[in-house]
Amino acid sequence: MQHTSPLAALRSLLKERELDGMLVPRTDAWQSEYCAPYDDKLEFISGFDGSAGLALILADRALLFVDGRYQVQARQQVNLEEFEIHHLHDEPIHLWLQENLSVGKRIAFEPLLMVNSQYESLRTSGCDLVAVDDDPINKIWATRPAIPRGLIRQMPDEISGESTASKCARVAQALARKGVNFLALTLPDNIAWLLNVRGSDIPTSPVPLSFALVKNDGAVEWFVDEAKLQQLDSSVLESIAIHSPDAFLTRCQQLAAGKRFLLDGDNTPVAVRFAVEQGGGDIEWQPDPITLMKANKNDIELEGYRSSHIQDGAAWINFLAWLSHEVPLREAAGNPITELEAQEKQLAFRQECDNFIEQSFGTISAAAGNAAMCHYHSAPETNFAITGHEFYLNDSGGQYFNGTTDATRTLNFGQLDAQRRLHYTAVLKGFLSLISLQFPQGTQGHQLDAFARRPLWELGLDYDHGTGHGVGHNMLIHENPHRMAKKVNPWPMLPGNVLTIEPGYYLAGSHGIRIENQVEVVASIPGFCKFASLTLIPIDLSAVELPLLSEQEIAWLDDYHQLVRETLSPLVSSTARPWLIEATAPVRTQRM
Amino acid sequence: MQHTSPLAALRSLLKERELDGMLVPRTDAWQSEYCAPYDDKLEFISGFDGSAGLALILADRALLFVDGRYQVQARQQVNLEEFEIHHLHDEPIHLWLQENLSVGKRIAFEPLLMVNSQYESLRTSGCDLVAVDDDPINKIWATRPAIPRGLIRQMPDEISGESTASKCARVAQALARKGVNFLALTLPDNIAWLLNVRGSDIPTSPVPLSFALVKNDGAVEWFVDEAKLQQLDSSVLESIAIHSPDAFLTRCQQLAAGKRFLLDGDNTPVAVRFAVEQGGGDIEWQPDPITLMKANKNDIELEGYRSSHIQDGAAWINFLAWLSHEVPLREAAGNPITELEAQEKQLAFRQECDNFIEQSFGTISAAAGNAAMCHYHSAPETNFAITGHEFYLNDSGGQYFNGTTDATRTLNFGQLDAQRRLHYTAVLKGFLSLISLQFPQGTQGHQLDAFARRPLWELGLDYDHGTGHGVGHNMLIHENPHRMAKKVNPWPMLPGNVLTIEPGYYLAGSHGIRIENQVEVVASIPGFCKFASLTLIPIDLSAVELPLLSEQEIAWLDDYHQLVRETLSPLVSSTARPWLIEATAPVRTQRM
Repeated sequence: MQHTSPLAALRSLLKERELDGMLVPRTDAWQSEYCAPYDDKLEFISGFDGSAGLALILADRALLFVDGRYQVQARQQVNLEEFEIHHLHDEPIHLWLQENLSVGKRIAFEPLLMVNSQYESLRTSGCDLVAVDDDPINKIWATRPAIPRGLIRQMPDEISGESTASKCARVAQALARKGVNFLALTLPDNIAWLLNVRGSDIPTSPVPLSFALVKNDGAVEWFVDEAKLQQLDSSVLESIAIHSPDAFLTRCQQLAAGKRFLLDGDNTPVAVRFAVEQGGGDIEWQPDPITLMKANKNDIELEGYRSSHIQDGAAWINFLAWLSHEVPLREAAGNPITELEAQEKQLAFRQECDNFIEQSFGTISAAAGNAAMCHYHSAPETNFAITGHEFYLNDSGGQYFNGTTDATRTLNFGQLDAQRRLHYTAVLKGFLSLISLQFPQGTQGHQLDAFARRPLWELGLDYDHGTGHGVGHNMLIHENPHRMAKKVNPWPMLPGNVLTIEPGYYLAGSHGIRIENQVEVVASIPGFCKFASLTLIPIDLSAVELPLLSEQEIAWLDDYHQLVRETLSPLVSSTARPWLIEATAPVRTQRM
Repeated sequence: MQHTSPLAALRSLLKERELDGMLVPRTDAWQSEYCAPYDDKLEFISGFDGSAGLALILADRALLFVDGRYQVQARQQVNLEEFEIHHLHDEPIHLWLQENLSVGKRIAFEPLLMVNSQYESLRTSGCDLVAVDDDPINKIWATRPAIPRGLIRQMPDEISGESTASKCARVAQALARKGVNFLALTLPDNIAWLLNVRGSDIPTSPVPLSFALVKNDGAVEWFVDEAKLQQLDSSVLESIAIHSPDAFLTRCQQLAAGKRFLLDGDNTPVAVRFAVEQGGGDIEWQPDPITLMKANKNDIELEGYRSSHIQDGAAWINFLAWLSHEVPLREAAGNPITELEAQEKQLAFRQECDNFIEQSFGTISAAAGNAAMCHYHSAPETNFAITGHEFYLNDSGGQYFNGTTDATRTLNFGQLDAQRRLHYTAVLKGFLSLISLQFPQGTQGHQLDAFARRPLWELGLDYDHGTGHGVGHNMLIHENPHRMAKKVNPWPMLPGNVLTIEPGYYLAGSHGIRIENQVEVVASIPGFCKFASLTLIPIDLSAVELPLLSEQEIAWLDDYHQLVRETLSPLVSSTARPWLIEATAPVRTQRM
């Protein structure tokens, strides 16, 4: 997986322009987690294909900053003779620049690829930030893929639960209350939510890459490639003015004089700020109000999530029953099932579901040490066998017309050693601690994160990723703003929020464990909330040290497995049904 | 406790000066939690004597903002026909002003009584903030108490563990690293730490009210009333320039031209900012570096804490043994022990300790419903009897020459009902959950707070105060910067930090429960920390529903009680010793 990067070409371009360096973020103008290949400049320049990262190309050094999830993967994908690997959070780029470069160094950046808060933090570095609008990477990227032109489809009101007119009216009210004239929308899931559409520019991310302006009377201008609109009913477009995406910044500048724009400092490209300021407009920096509206799912959306999870759960059970049967047989026959074969089979089971569209992210199908890379994706050259003496981790999900699923199970098909069993038990106990919690309405994610970690902390262990993220409604798999993590997340959790709970443990080169359910926040006794599982998949208990579980933990597992069995037994294949019965058998009986 | 406030006099003064209102905070120039009576303008104006609050006096309304601890107490102390009571945190004053007053209203404030961050937040309210330097309240406060002139004593290096010269050198290094010329010190505990002195201006707060300037070469100018210095050895003062406190602002202004001052935006009066700016200086807004240096206790300080807690623990046990013996006898005799009698007796036991100086805060000695007011102090007119059918809560501590103690026990002398037992058990379980935690070094307080709340949350209950605070070394009972609370606290917890753990539960008019130990953070296995109890006092288990405790919880209690018994048995009175043995008997045996 070593990769020779086109650094020399970029460096000579920088030299020509008297630039001392250039920032190349893993981002596009839409803050997409999964970039279109067209936009993945970081992979082009470095070879690293993870979902977050930043390269700094200097004349004599090249640095790649990646987070905890990607420390292993980056070192495998990048040519370490060209790139140094740094930690994205432990060494913030602005501090690195401040401490390592002399004041006034000219560092280039593309203003569509940087949000305002990054820009402001970089300004504290003492470097001279030079905005370059002409896409310098494009000049050296001979084999750049085509710009995405995915068709856009309508999301019917019967599935979204609210008409575009009603949503626009709510947004207009919010803008009027804040005393702003325009909301500049660049987040594609917020545009998709507002206009009740879904896109297909990027596999697994059904949101259209486009821009929009909402006026404080609810009028919408949509900056979208017309080629993407062919399938849309004309009635959808009736009340919306359509422009080319290339016209977006110019239009912001044109409209700006004397007007106030609401921009989201953490999500809007700083290019929009420059356009508004050049046009003589004012900026109100606030989170995009749609982000929170979208996170509070309505009853019809929640019903859709539940329904899609029932379908997805049945597909999981058909897959797990097949896998449990085949793994020992194939291992004994000397022809073990591999990660890639398993994920293909799983996809085939999902494709049997009526409402299934596509995967909701690239499946992580990882055996043994591969699972220690949290966001590993199998490839022919890394494709491990699934056997009885190592864990197999599967993190996958589906986009359904009425919801999005995301779940992880870590599976044992044989006899694992005491250390692996202890680690698995600790991860399970953390999962149970958080998912069974009752908490005051409005509690924030960072207040609860440690419940999922404590059993690992007791062993002196931890995991270097968040504990839970929001999930979109047939939209992005990682939806803002809610998160449960060590990092502060200011958004109160309320009934109708949909999140994951996914503690894990990873031992490099040995094994990776993660257990993940998607949950909805539901009202409990007055003033308090609970989590209710959307995910309906048996949790493998064969690697658990049962004596370490409390009565309450066992009661939760037995209740959950009863729910899974009763809900899904009628829906799974007749060959999977006996497996389901066994996999959901109550622990209480086993212990007696 | 109703109080008729001198509002009319203040209002006519405001009218004369064409002011629409005035802010009267419960604060002095030193951010003292316990103000000198001389400085307690909020009590003068409103009658409320809690440790935090803010009044806003307008022409036709007067508002008192207090936090969750004081909602009950404020309504008892204040004339509710004159004052409306508001919530200090739920209704931030700047938002209240913004929403309720028209733009440009002239609101007066005293710039020595407001820190920069409050000033900046008030500036967003749209009001015209008018700094008044001539102490208008003084004009109407005929019976104002005398300005405090408490003697200052030396803290020997053998107890502080580090010389003033060494501390000044460390501070000078920090200033040089930050590129600033001067540190303006206004926090009295930071001055006390730096100069190895203790003061006596305010009972229970052994810190001198004064100001100081530290230059980046380590030179110190101390702005302190010379009358307070009589007891100090001349050698202590040799290397320090002494000025009058009244000269402080003028001196800042004199020194400022072309110089950079480090000011702590959350703690330095905005008057210092005005002085530096008027003198042509620059300001570097950063937390006072001494705050963190002081929080990381050295080995000699930690040894002092441990030793003072052994003394304090013995005094507690002598008191509790006496109380346990007397409460039923005196109740039966129709002459029950009262809150005030109990706290006097407790003080007498503490005064038997060699190193005891004074109480570390006003004792909370509260029976039955009085304990539902978290920061209640007994008075003849509220003085409840201590009986066998209600909880008695005692929160008290001592200032010792080598440390400061703070502990709470809630006691049962008879048979309490099921609800009280359940509440007590939940508070105890929260206490045990947090105190037994192992956590990654550097974890922040808000990440751990919820462990202490979860057993209450399970019952749909909670408490409206923080879970733990730092404690000074023969200094302030609430020491910054570490805190465990719902609110974000960015300071990483490291070995050598000293905090309390004190969950509670309060049912207005019925009962209040709190269990509090002081702990030090200690290193555990590599990368992890634990809490080690400094407090050595038996925890009353007579109101616990023992079947609700886990094996681990019982093991912690038994281990703790064994430590208390073995450490203190030789030190308590012979009459208290049998009580100690019984109060620390292992639960394991009782259960079998």
